[in-house]
Amino acid sequence: MRAVDIIMSKRDGRALTRDEIRFFVDGVTNGSLPDYQASALLMAILLRGMQAEETAALTDAMVHSGIRVDLGDIPGVKVDKHSTGGVGDKTSLVLAPLAAACGVPVPMMSGRGLGHTGGTLDKLEAIPGFRVDLSLEEMKAALVKAGCAMIGQTAQIAPADKKLYALRDVTGTVESIPLISASIMSKKIAEGIDALVLDVKTGSGAFMKTEADSRRLAESLVSIGNASGVRTEAIITAMDAPLGRAVGNALEVIECLDVLKGGGPQDLVDVSVELAARMLVLGKVADDIAAAETQVRKAIASGAGLERFRQIIEIQGGDPRVVDDYGRMPHVADRHTIAADKPGYLTGLDAELVGRASVALGAGRDRVEDPVDPAVGIMVAAKPGEKVKPGDPVLELHFRDRARLDAAIALASRAITIGDQAPPARRLVVGEVR
Amino acid sequence: MRAVDIIMSKRDGRALTRDEIRFFVDGVTNGSLPDYQASALLMAILLRGMQAEETAALTDAMVHSGIRVDLGDIPGVKVDKHSTGGVGDKTSLVLAPLAAACGVPVPMMSGRGLGHTGGTLDKLEAIPGFRVDLSLEEMKAALVKAGCAMIGQTAQIAPADKKLYALRDVTGTVESIPLISASIMSKKIAEGIDALVLDVKTGSGAFMKTEADSRRLAESLVSIGNASGVRTEAIITAMDAPLGRAVGNALEVIECLDVLKGGGPQDLVDVSVELAARMLVLGKVADDIAAAETQVRKAIASGAGLERFRQIIEIQGGDPRVVDDYGRMPHVADRHTIAADKPGYLTGLDAELVGRASVALGAGRDRVEDPVDPAVGIMVAAKPGEKVKPGDPVLELHFRDRARLDAAIALASRAITIGDQAPPARRLVVGEVR
Repeated sequence: MRAVDIIMSKRDGRALTRDEIRFFVDGVTNGSLPDYQASALLMAILLRGMQAEETAALTDAMVHSGIRVDLGDIPGVKVDKHSTGGVGDKTSLVLAPLAAACGVPVPMMSGRGLGHTGGTLDKLEAIPGFRVDLSLEEMKAALVKAGCAMIGQTAQIAPADKKLYALRDVTGTVESIPLISASIMSKKIAEGIDALVLDVKTGSGAFMKTEADSRRLAESLVSIGNASGVRTEAIITAMDAPLGRAVGNALEVIECLDVLKGGGPQDLVDVSVELAARMLVLGKVADDIAAAETQVRKAIASGAGLERFRQIIEIQGGDPRVVDDYGRMPHVADRHTIAADKPGYLTGLDAELVGRASVALGAGRDRVEDPVDPAVGIMVAAKPGEKVKPGDPVLELHFRDRARLDAAIALASRAITIGDQAPPARRLVVGEVR
Repeated sequence: MRAVDIIMSKRDGRALTRDEIRFFVDGVTNGSLPDYQASALLMAILLRGMQAEETAALTDAMVHSGIRVDLGDIPGVKVDKHSTGGVGDKTSLVLAPLAAACGVPVPMMSGRGLGHTGGTLDKLEAIPGFRVDLSLEEMKAALVKAGCAMIGQTAQIAPADKKLYALRDVTGTVESIPLISASIMSKKIAEGIDALVLDVKTGSGAFMKTEADSRRLAESLVSIGNASGVRTEAIITAMDAPLGRAVGNALEVIECLDVLKGGGPQDLVDVSVELAARMLVLGKVADDIAAAETQVRKAIASGAGLERFRQIIEIQGGDPRVVDDYGRMPHVADRHTIAADKPGYLTGLDAELVGRASVALGAGRDRVEDPVDPAVGIMVAAKPGEKVKPGDPVLELHFRDRARLDAAIALASRAITIGDQAPPARRLVVGEVR
């Protein structure tokens, strides 16, 4: 088998065989396939597409590039949730303790923020002492003890994905549904779960800008998961404006604690409860979605979710006192308020621009090797649909470095649109795929 | 300017700017652009195409990656000829001395054979002592003395092309009209000629299998040449069966000498005279193609072309006695004849298979670094259209190594088609572009 023949086959629009895909992924993993051949094939895949069987074979080959974790000795249906990434998208920190409190084991492997979107690991690490680098054994122990563990991807999980992603990032081959699907699902399948709920974001702040593209991605992901024996379903949720009010690592942790205490912004509560409820049904601890939702809301009201989160923090080395004392979370003293400059309705709050402003403040990273500042971020004072008058705060920037502030203000100001008419009510969950 | 943005632009079907193309070619030439980005862009170009202006800018940037030879101090309109490659395609060795004998300075830079097609340099080197590695100064001296020089491409000519071609070869990005056009024309423009006649081959043994693709390539090449100040025209000629009767380096040189002596196969004579006549018109030594053809045929009849070839051989270090004594050319004693196995008409003699059989004997190379055997090759005993009876020789294989012979027989046998009906008369020159 020659790499150049595989490249030409895909270039000419033919479907690749399982063996050809395996040859490619193995070559990438062990370094025998030169990067220049891998990138030519990635571009051919992006432009020619892949059939469902090819994407499944690609995912499978990527899973087999590393280990598939065996969680068979842990009782229960293990369920994870994955989001395709958004701004202020912090539902993992809410739903994981809630699902665990309701009896679903949640072995969650998450990623870091990149570009304008945040990442669960960065948020967790804003909690002083919190360790996301548990070994697989530590992760299993945490899962047994707290019913939940929240860790980063280990080097043994889908190593082909790490190499391919680095190459895609610099060769213009990121935006391909088959490649995105295989990247996401190979990691999820390898982590040893039984079921998966996906939150596919759609809108200006999402990777997929249109509902049609988001649905195509959701369908691709669900089909791969189910074909690999992981029961998978997806909801498609709006990411035109930030979810909740907090954007930035420590600020988002605090907002999640608020939700677990029965407060917090309604949109964040609704999406978190919806996702957690689906996890309960997939995890066979609730018969249907209505019963599941009741259980989840009860876990909020009783404080069981909050206590579970406190336990997770403690097991993973974090300071559990942050739960009651937000002053122990990293924070900055300086604030800059961006106010409405005319009367009207806030008709838009562009998620991508808010996300990029937050990155400019230091809360996120443009390159994987950049450090993040856990304390800085943006609080949304006015949400889309709210009435504002001149001088009313819309965004509050929590900044450390004045030099970074200017760039953030420039971006954040452009995110705000004020109109005369109230915008149509926002639909949060715009679709589902199962 | 970032390489990844240029890649994404072409990936999404946008036209690249002159500056973007220059950035890409300069990066390839000086090594600052990683191969994996270059190959992703090459694949995007292959699949998305290039507009005429982009191809012209690519060619221009590739010319400027090296020197553009100045032949201004040599009087006359300097004219070269280039063929897109075929089997038995030896016209250069006939037309260069003929055009020179008629007063057209011919500074010819040629290539080596690759895959099933032969190369002029390999054929010339079959002449004992013949040097194709003249320096530019030696080449100019030869041009003044004999009116013709036949050399290989120097390292200063379009170095970007050498790097890009090596990358295209292993990344499935050879078959792109813009990339082929820029590769051919950058070398031709850089060699300092005033005019160029192109022989674009079409058919089973050609790079372009269909007449439509061949015409598109011819139009692209002619448009680039004329835009760069090199008067360019093209003829499209059949390459369904080998041209002439000899395939293999020494065998082809001998056939060319036969033509210059007034003999040789009719198809080879006709294409060589047609191309040479066009060179005379472009070189302004004949007013029209009819007058030019008369001059060229006169140069054959008078022996002026043959004497010019003898002079070129002598100047370039070769043994001029081969002209009169073919026994001084490399040769092998062993022959294997493939005969007709049934009565009928020879309806097809697949050029690609004959070419591959010749490579199998050792006359050509699969990889650029392979050596070639000048003596081996194939003589076509029966040409398409001829009547054959069982046992009549169709192909005569001149072999050195019996182990190689079997592979060659297997390929060559498949090249032969015998039918009941005489095939339609072969059209040699199927079109022109100017």
